[in-house]
Amino acid sequence: MAHKIVKSRYFGDEGLIETMAEVPADKLKAWGPGTELKIVGKPVSRLDGYEKVSGRAVFTFDVILPRMTYAKMLRASVPHARIKNIDTSKADDLPGVLKILTFKNCPKIPWHWGTTALFDEEVRYEGDEVACVVAETGQIAEEALGLINVQYETLPFVTDPELAMKTDAPKVHGWGNIIDEKPSVYSRGDVEKGFRESDVTFEDTYSTQIVVHNPTEPHCSVAAWENDKLTVWDSTQAVFAVRDTIAKSLSMPASKVRVIKKYMGGGFGAKLEAGKYSVIAAILSKEIGRPVRIALDRKEMNLSAGNRPDSVQKLKAGARKDGTLMALSQSSYGNVGAYPNGADCSTPLRTLYKCPNVQTEEYSVLTNLGRSRAYRAPGHVQGTFAFESLMDDLAEKLGMDPMELRKKNYTEVDPESGRPYTSKRILDAYLQGAKAIGWNEKRKPAGSEKGRFRRGIGMASQIWWGGGGPPAYCTIKLNQDASAHVLAGTQDLGTGTYTYLAQITSEVLEIPLEKIQVTLGDTETCPYCGLSGGSLTAPSVSPAVRDAAEQMKMKLISAASAILETAESNIKYSEGKMSKLDDPAKTITISEVIGEMHERVLVTTGAREANPEGYEINSFGAQFAEVEVDTWTGKVRVIKIVAAHDIGRVLNHKTLLNQFHGGIIQGAAYALLEERVVDEYTGKVLTTNIHDYKLPTVQDTPEIELIVVSESDPLISNTGVKGIGEPAIIPTAGAIANAVYNALGIRIKSLPITPDKVLMALSEKI
Amino acid sequence: MAHKIVKSRYFGDEGLIETMAEVPADKLKAWGPGTELKIVGKPVSRLDGYEKVSGRAVFTFDVILPRMTYAKMLRASVPHARIKNIDTSKADDLPGVLKILTFKNCPKIPWHWGTTALFDEEVRYEGDEVACVVAETGQIAEEALGLINVQYETLPFVTDPELAMKTDAPKVHGWGNIIDEKPSVYSRGDVEKGFRESDVTFEDTYSTQIVVHNPTEPHCSVAAWENDKLTVWDSTQAVFAVRDTIAKSLSMPASKVRVIKKYMGGGFGAKLEAGKYSVIAAILSKEIGRPVRIALDRKEMNLSAGNRPDSVQKLKAGARKDGTLMALSQSSYGNVGAYPNGADCSTPLRTLYKCPNVQTEEYSVLTNLGRSRAYRAPGHVQGTFAFESLMDDLAEKLGMDPMELRKKNYTEVDPESGRPYTSKRILDAYLQGAKAIGWNEKRKPAGSEKGRFRRGIGMASQIWWGGGGPPAYCTIKLNQDASAHVLAGTQDLGTGTYTYLAQITSEVLEIPLEKIQVTLGDTETCPYCGLSGGSLTAPSVSPAVRDAAEQMKMKLISAASAILETAESNIKYSEGKMSKLDDPAKTITISEVIGEMHERVLVTTGAREANPEGYEINSFGAQFAEVEVDTWTGKVRVIKIVAAHDIGRVLNHKTLLNQFHGGIIQGAAYALLEERVVDEYTGKVLTTNIHDYKLPTVQDTPEIELIVVSESDPLISNTGVKGIGEPAIIPTAGAIANAVYNALGIRIKSLPITPDKVLMALSEKI
Repeated sequence: MAHKIVKSRYFGDEGLIETMAEVPADKLKAWGPGTELKIVGKPVSRLDGYEKVSGRAVFTFDVILPRMTYAKMLRASVPHARIKNIDTSKADDLPGVLKILTFKNCPKIPWHWGTTALFDEEVRYEGDEVACVVAETGQIAEEALGLINVQYETLPFVTDPELAMKTDAPKVHGWGNIIDEKPSVYSRGDVEKGFRESDVTFEDTYSTQIVVHNPTEPHCSVAAWENDKLTVWDSTQAVFAVRDTIAKSLSMPASKVRVIKKYMGGGFGAKLEAGKYSVIAAILSKEIGRPVRIALDRKEMNLSAGNRPDSVQKLKAGARKDGTLMALSQSSYGNVGAYPNGADCSTPLRTLYKCPNVQTEEYSVLTNLGRSRAYRAPGHVQGTFAFESLMDDLAEKLGMDPMELRKKNYTEVDPESGRPYTSKRILDAYLQGAKAIGWNEKRKPAGSEKGRFRRGIGMASQIWWGGGGPPAYCTIKLNQDASAHVLAGTQDLGTGTYTYLAQITSEVLEIPLEKIQVTLGDTETCPYCGLSGGSLTAPSVSPAVRDAAEQMKMKLISAASAILETAESNIKYSEGKMSKLDDPAKTITISEVIGEMHERVLVTTGAREANPEGYEINSFGAQFAEVEVDTWTGKVRVIKIVAAHDIGRVLNHKTLLNQFHGGIIQGAAYALLEERVVDEYTGKVLTTNIHDYKLPTVQDTPEIELIVVSESDPLISNTGVKGIGEPAIIPTAGAIANAVYNALGIRIKSLPITPDKVLMALSEKI
Repeated sequence: MAHKIVKSRYFGDEGLIETMAEVPADKLKAWGPGTELKIVGKPVSRLDGYEKVSGRAVFTFDVILPRMTYAKMLRASVPHARIKNIDTSKADDLPGVLKILTFKNCPKIPWHWGTTALFDEEVRYEGDEVACVVAETGQIAEEALGLINVQYETLPFVTDPELAMKTDAPKVHGWGNIIDEKPSVYSRGDVEKGFRESDVTFEDTYSTQIVVHNPTEPHCSVAAWENDKLTVWDSTQAVFAVRDTIAKSLSMPASKVRVIKKYMGGGFGAKLEAGKYSVIAAILSKEIGRPVRIALDRKEMNLSAGNRPDSVQKLKAGARKDGTLMALSQSSYGNVGAYPNGADCSTPLRTLYKCPNVQTEEYSVLTNLGRSRAYRAPGHVQGTFAFESLMDDLAEKLGMDPMELRKKNYTEVDPESGRPYTSKRILDAYLQGAKAIGWNEKRKPAGSEKGRFRRGIGMASQIWWGGGGPPAYCTIKLNQDASAHVLAGTQDLGTGTYTYLAQITSEVLEIPLEKIQVTLGDTETCPYCGLSGGSLTAPSVSPAVRDAAEQMKMKLISAASAILETAESNIKYSEGKMSKLDDPAKTITISEVIGEMHERVLVTTGAREANPEGYEINSFGAQFAEVEVDTWTGKVRVIKIVAAHDIGRVLNHKTLLNQFHGGIIQGAAYALLEERVVDEYTGKVLTTNIHDYKLPTVQDTPEIELIVVSESDPLISNTGVKGIGEPAIIPTAGAIANAVYNALGIRIKSLPITPDKVLMALSEKI
């Protein structure tokens, strides 16, 4: 390990000791704590805000090309069947229909790791792709779908993961329904011994529902060919990944597939991979020699575009009387739908607190339903709800304040690897969050409230991977008029990437934001960056941008020192001008420097440096919820959420708040509203529109207070940024569930906490 | 001077001695003579050929954007006037008209170095911009033009440069009509003394006409805004220059103007600067909030899009009896039209041959006609015709073979600077060209032919700047599947740049052409390259591409040596694979190397190195023409052109031939067909379509034989390439004129050599 841990006080109220690794000399150029920045961190409005609020921003959904055609997908109407025959002749004859693809005439392109094909003879869930029609208009394509005659040989199906795990259950594929045919397991210490040595144990089973991402902008692609080159506009979180999948599917060189994503109405993990629609649009476009647009509608998104798997989590905790955790165990399973995926959710239990003995086993189960996909903090959201509910239940049994139980089990090293964190400020998040919610003043004993409306306060903690990492590159082009281009192959999902990359460039080069043009999301012209998911974007890309900008500044200073005939150390760089420190009248502008260099445009490429070895990099946080339960209707209202988080350096306080608002609203809706409902007798999804599927509205939005307890984590990178997209949602449901428990003295163990469950629980208590 | 000149034989037939500078050790990596290349130099078909012949390639002219609108320009109908009033009210009321710009409502944006504005109250030629209408369709805009009522106060005008030079001539601007109010002059030695010491002198006056570029694709722009950012698709030879002019005109940062040019139907110098139409499209687009397209029609191109200035050249030569040139003088003037430009054409006289005493004076004259612009080898085409006619006339007077006169005055250093050439092989061009045309066998004494059809053979030499130079950059992105992107901010005018940049990348990295995607002509995403004119593109950009590719190869070799645990010198790179020299079974692919590096895409940026100091870099060549004159009709038919040129290394023999075919056909049409005709009484151009303006057709195309006498010029750059776009056209007209003289024994001193001039000259001789 390279550096020792320094324990230092950053916040003094209660004399809290926080963990922060010592910053070595070679990292001193990082924007560490105490570094005052002019633009970075400020609440700068989005540079693309005007375009978006005026409705002029062209999202992938809005892309229109000359001679563009429209494709629609025919999807399976049954949960499991073999296609005996498809007759497309009537549809083919419909005027305006240009081409219909089915398993019969489409090349066999492997999909979902070869478990199926782009078009398969067997369909495994209601919504599986059966055919695709491309026509002059979307209306014609839609009409043609109704003219396709599919004869199914129906097969037995299963939608419930518990049933699916049984040996005699219908098989989704030829083989068993449990992924890898065994659970994924983890263990440290001796969990049985731990439970034996505990003074108190508590165990219970918690469960969560399936929720659907439902981003504002549907999944969509527009594909167009120029000779042997394909351009795909795709609403994606990963332009390079989509490119590589399309190239592989069509056996093309990656350089001949250009994937572009400019503006995007959210993804939340549902747009991390190429959709079948992207590849199908490309194939159809080549066939008919015209651009093809495929956009999923809301029903298709709810059937086929992914979801967060559900979970049934049997948890057990053992502790000493003083609250010291001695053992934790988890046995759980989750429904991943018809194609392989993972449903693990035990990371919070394994890593949130110090505990010597831990054991988990988790089953990911195939069923005849739409496939699960990563969804904002996959695993962590369901795991944190259950584990933090258990922690509160354990605290109740111990007679301890739940926050004190968490503090008691604070760990300053990662419990799995034993490595220290680059920084960890969760204790301060507890302190400041508790103060903001009124933990000590307003919180009453659980169930002590009376009357129709009962209030309660609860909290939950959160851990997430936070550091990002290489490879991520950024190119800066500085024009002679001191305006700059910033190019990076990352993507702005609506989170503000365009804006904060401009801020970093502006900060370093001291040129105004109005002179900076940021280009993202183009595999042809932008340097490589990875996917935008896992809260990786800002911590991965921001250091590459700063690196490119610092290189540019050095290039200018070096040229200025030659022009002004002085040492580089004697050059002062300020506001895009360079002057001699010992003779400030000798000043030269960027324009003049570039002119003297006989250049027109200077170019630098920066890279994300490697993460420090020997450390864990995590974001931490705690959220505090105040709720009010209407005991007559069973309705839970979230009054306020306080989110106190350690996220390293803030790049833009306004877009940061947006992220937290979004995450917390989504988390609260997960706690109280959203649920994909399936009819187990027909295997059909009943909630395929946003009338039936309960997305939150402004009416469901609580007051939100965000407290950032960190300044910067300079050990990670030159910007000191940790990821925040996912931390925002992780503890929300747990905090709300614990607040409901505090209000009623009743534990609702199954999400969402809907009025019927509350009323049922209240009636059982009476 | 860094390196001594080596005289070495490359072609032995007549024991010719050729000049080639010694290549220093640090240039040994250049592709010098003798270097065998696999793909570079081969006649590879254009990578964009399929798109072009299938009609699917989207030129700027073809760009269609959603909600695009169409603008048309109202142009002055008189050669010189002040606008008393413009009434656009009727046009404004026409349904579908969206906006009309005139000098009244358009900001005063300086144009042509401040001598006029984007819209000026004074018009100075028929075709000057008066107003611009944007409408829903082009038809509506066209109709609206007719509804604009312009009241002119007509002013005196002048169209003839000889008249315009007189002190009492109407003034095109307030000041005198001679640019800079004086001729540009040059002199070396003592020209009077030179003539005195001559045994023979010859003087005469030669003149050339105005010709119009008339590229296939008209000048056009499509402008579209996204918030504060402007994108302009422009049919231009210089995306960065157009960008900078638009940015300056609109007071915008350069980074907020993106100029894109993908495919282009020729420019020939007429598209080197931003047109008024580009800026007007941008202004209108901002005003109406929709994309605006402006495309000039053929009439507008012939009036307003530039031309080659004419020339009246009074030349004198003096020589010893043995042919040794003693003195040369030139006094000339040319018509630059209504806005400042240059009409100098004396470079051939000053630099083609060894001559100690030279004096030139040249007048560039303003008239009330469309402005001249650079046109393929500006100055050289008119200058070479006149000077090489004079050389033949002198040879005749000396009783010498004209080619012998040229060989006699061969110079191995630049006559102006005294510096040696990096390489010069014009003697071999004479030798091989003469052999191919049958100089010794077929050529008869001038005027010795009899009968109706009389054949003649003539030749002319050529010099042009050839080296290109920095700044020019290229970025290569190598994907894990060993496919590559090549990005450069240059532009392919139709000359094959896309193809030869791919060839260079393929040559170095040994990956197939099909895996290489070249992106050019985009100021936002491509690294900087200069304009495409002056035959600069290939010699400037090709070395940057090779540099980027070589860096990439080194990066791969370096990584492979680490992976295979051996020295870099022990790595053999072949066909995209790296193996140990001493253990060839140990092989690793590009894919594996990139994977092992934990990368996905490798990026390198190459740059054009500086030209060697102390040298002149020129392309040289000689063309030989065989003609047949029909003495009954006066029509001259070019039977064959042999073009023998020293152009350094050939990148692609197919596109090279295309360039020579184009240049020679254009040169032959300059000699025989093309002429802009003006009615001097009205100041109106009479040849504003390609029925009246005589562009050549396939019927006018001679047999063309190209001989490349050079292998490579490694001293210039790592590719050894000299520019060839302009050399192709320079000597053609002179060679034809000399062949006509050889056929008839009559000198036609004025271009074009039309039947009327031939018949008139024949009748005078009888």
